[in-house]
Amino acid sequence: MNLVILEPGEISDSGDVRLDGARGAHLANVLRVATGQQVRIGILDGAQGLGTVQSISGQTVALRCAFEPTVPPGPRVDLLLALPRPKVMRRLWAQIAALGVGQIILTNAERVERNYFDTHVLSPACYRPLLIEGLQQARDTRLPRVSIHRQFKVLIEDDLDALVPGGLRLAAEPGAAKTLGTLVRECGEQRVLLAVGPEGGWNSFETALLEAHGFQSAGMGPRTLRTDTACVALLALVHEAIAVSSA
Amino acid sequence: MNLVILEPGEISDSGDVRLDGARGAHLANVLRVATGQQVRIGILDGAQGLGTVQSISGQTVALRCAFEPTVPPGPRVDLLLALPRPKVMRRLWAQIAALGVGQIILTNAERVERNYFDTHVLSPACYRPLLIEGLQQARDTRLPRVSIHRQFKVLIEDDLDALVPGGLRLAAEPGAAKTLGTLVRECGEQRVLLAVGPEGGWNSFETALLEAHGFQSAGMGPRTLRTDTACVALLALVHEAIAVSSA
Repeated sequence: MNLVILEPGEISDSGDVRLDGARGAHLANVLRVATGQQVRIGILDGAQGLGTVQSISGQTVALRCAFEPTVPPGPRVDLLLALPRPKVMRRLWAQIAALGVGQIILTNAERVERNYFDTHVLSPACYRPLLIEGLQQARDTRLPRVSIHRQFKVLIEDDLDALVPGGLRLAAEPGAAKTLGTLVRECGEQRVLLAVGPEGGWNSFETALLEAHGFQSAGMGPRTLRTDTACVALLALVHEAIAVSSA
Repeated sequence: MNLVILEPGEISDSGDVRLDGARGAHLANVLRVATGQQVRIGILDGAQGLGTVQSISGQTVALRCAFEPTVPPGPRVDLLLALPRPKVMRRLWAQIAALGVGQIILTNAERVERNYFDTHVLSPACYRPLLIEGLQQARDTRLPRVSIHRQFKVLIEDDLDALVPGGLRLAAEPGAAKTLGTLVRECGEQRVLLAVGPEGGWNSFETALLEAHGFQSAGMGPRTLRTDTACVALLALVHEAIAVSSA
């Protein structure tokens, strides 16, 4: 935990917060904080700052918080992902949040099994703590917004423009002519929406629909990767390309 | 499975092979091959080619193999990794092989728990099939060489130059001044050895020893990632930078 994330309602008007549970135990047992020590803190979807340890009692740690006046901008990347199997999705939540995305848009596709949508891994009670875990790892406070779509056609034709207006739309495809890095570097300051298909890929109808709605094929070399590896690899490449083109 | 990997000894002089077990079941039940159909094949550490289905009997599939005359070059990247906990390492084997590395050099460090070295996840019986799974996913035949080092100092001072002579040496570090992409693009056609530290990072002795042995700090933005996410993200960035600088 490189940043302790606090919910807005947890902090008193005087800037005090008492942490028990996982965060208190982490501070007391893993980081072994002492009274007077400062730890990095952040308000969920808000500013970052420093918390000064006021007292430690067992695994309850009291902090006095001071926040920076400005909130850093959120990630310029959104992810459209064909829902992988629950075990894989469970692992991905924290990884995606750590890499940094504004939105996670999960969708059905022909090669997604229908019962993947019935898992508790898609309930906020399951994924919210995992997203926060990723943010705490990466020192970010911006919680990705999550939406889940059981009908690919309805999502792409009716809902996507409202969810993600404008920006560069890329569909990851092994061996595509232009690399993802090149396309992102050419796009200037636009937001990037990255689509990652299911194991086995989008079918031809899905590919055509994505293309008709502005998605360009973006390659990352000749190697075909599993969904989870591809997600992490592609988000890293998009962030790198954004950093290069903003530099 | 995007490529069926065969061991050199499995193929008869006439180019025939009978696949049962996981590969036969995958061909029969998942890919549902028919007689006469061709599937991509490759010899472990050797050439790729096509196998023509001769017969299917239950989950046993007979192929006649034809190989390309040349073997594609292996990945230009090697990975030096502070051993993560066994559960994480188990997941990483296939991912690392899919992304493509020549060598996987696992090492101890102060922040690696000693008992991580006692796990069966470090036995070839465990990791070899996982590496091959990753190669079959990514359509590669080059099995990464694996070596395991319980003494960091001995590895870096005495063994590393023989394992990885020359080339560019990079130590991943969040927030380092020069990005990994920049350093790789500047290095021309050299091999790249990428060092990824333990959760919590290398200690100051380890950092100094790496620096004294030619490792440069290579950044990937301000976000601190977990070992497994970092490995995948960084290998993707190195491969992308190599592809750009070779283009």
